[in-house]
Amino acid sequence: MRIAVLGTGTVGRALAGRLVGLDHLVVIGTRDPGDTLAREGPDSFAAWHRGHPGVQVATYAEAPVGADLVVNATPGTVSLEVLTSIGADVLDGAVLMDVSNPLDFSAGFPPRLAASDAESLAERIQHAFPRTRVIKTLNTVNASVMVDPAALGATTTVFVSGDDRDAKSVVMWLLESFGHRDVIDLGGIETARGVELYLPLWLRLTGALGTVQFNIRVVR
Amino acid sequence: MRIAVLGTGTVGRALAGRLVGLDHLVVIGTRDPGDTLAREGPDSFAAWHRGHPGVQVATYAEAPVGADLVVNATPGTVSLEVLTSIGADVLDGAVLMDVSNPLDFSAGFPPRLAASDAESLAERIQHAFPRTRVIKTLNTVNASVMVDPAALGATTTVFVSGDDRDAKSVVMWLLESFGHRDVIDLGGIETARGVELYLPLWLRLTGALGTVQFNIRVVR
Repeated sequence: MRIAVLGTGTVGRALAGRLVGLDHLVVIGTRDPGDTLAREGPDSFAAWHRGHPGVQVATYAEAPVGADLVVNATPGTVSLEVLTSIGADVLDGAVLMDVSNPLDFSAGFPPRLAASDAESLAERIQHAFPRTRVIKTLNTVNASVMVDPAALGATTTVFVSGDDRDAKSVVMWLLESFGHRDVIDLGGIETARGVELYLPLWLRLTGALGTVQFNIRVVR
Repeated sequence: MRIAVLGTGTVGRALAGRLVGLDHLVVIGTRDPGDTLAREGPDSFAAWHRGHPGVQVATYAEAPVGADLVVNATPGTVSLEVLTSIGADVLDGAVLMDVSNPLDFSAGFPPRLAASDAESLAERIQHAFPRTRVIKTLNTVNASVMVDPAALGATTTVFVSGDDRDAKSVVMWLLESFGHRDVIDLGGIETARGVELYLPLWLRLTGALGTVQFNIRVVR
């Protein structure tokens, strides 16, 4: 598939790298590719990109053009702004896999959740782009667990939420190719409230466990 | 131990029944014992109590007097009102195991969460009763899983949040006596936000799985 990954942070890099490894054609989108590639340092995107030369780099607006799947890996607090800059026309009919978390780090750690039991970020995106097929998933795990769940040594659970059955099938097939063996379909996009409101527990678990390398398994 | 269980609903009954079975002296608290025992029916408290005659029944105010542990198993939306009616003097120094969930069912299912990432119900209780030692736990599972986690057939995880170390030890010892083999200490009472905000996911999981007989295991 041709896949656009929006966002060049830890999550965007992990997903883009894994997808290229699975032989997808991957374009990573960023605000200003020249600026993104110009910044240097051990954790820089440029350093990462030298190790992943197969990943194309484009602007947010260019990356999704002609893509079979668009991944929103931007920080949740700017996702709507980024998607609006791309425009509804480009995203018309697209499958948008939303892995973002609406976390506001402006007041320190733990960040405050910018979502509520009344409305999730995924629903706000779906409402703003009614002809885009939004599927929420993977926001409940760290980037490394997203793309390599087998490293945990036991089957764990991830979730999908969304209104479009075909789009959900595409995303679930992709999750399986990452190694996810227990994917629970929670239902429509409304159920994204559940996985977004899980983040405050995830954040406190990282503190208690001293690691981000964990996930939950739903035992039933 | 002498244990007061506040609340005669499904959760209060499950905990009181299990605690009596573990040879504790159990007093269940309700607004009006005469009224609670007068209501008949297959799911009535009176019917349950005939099968558990060892459980004493008292008013909310009487039940905690002299108790080593008080369990808040009232609906989260009325917990503060019930505790206020008991009074800070009675609850002074008490270990209060809070298993409630602040869920508002007035607009149907799924209920709306009456807590936020800014403040949990457990913290509101702790602030209202600063000399009471509040420990949040078990709100992440159904009543039957609370008292018999082994029935799930695999080890699953429950959590404790609270500021008082001794109170937490008492609660963790009790959880172990119920069969809980993986109890994660999340930290202070502030971490109750994590477990209370997990409820929207729990509610959607009951819908997706068609059962309340499940729990999560934290794999790390």
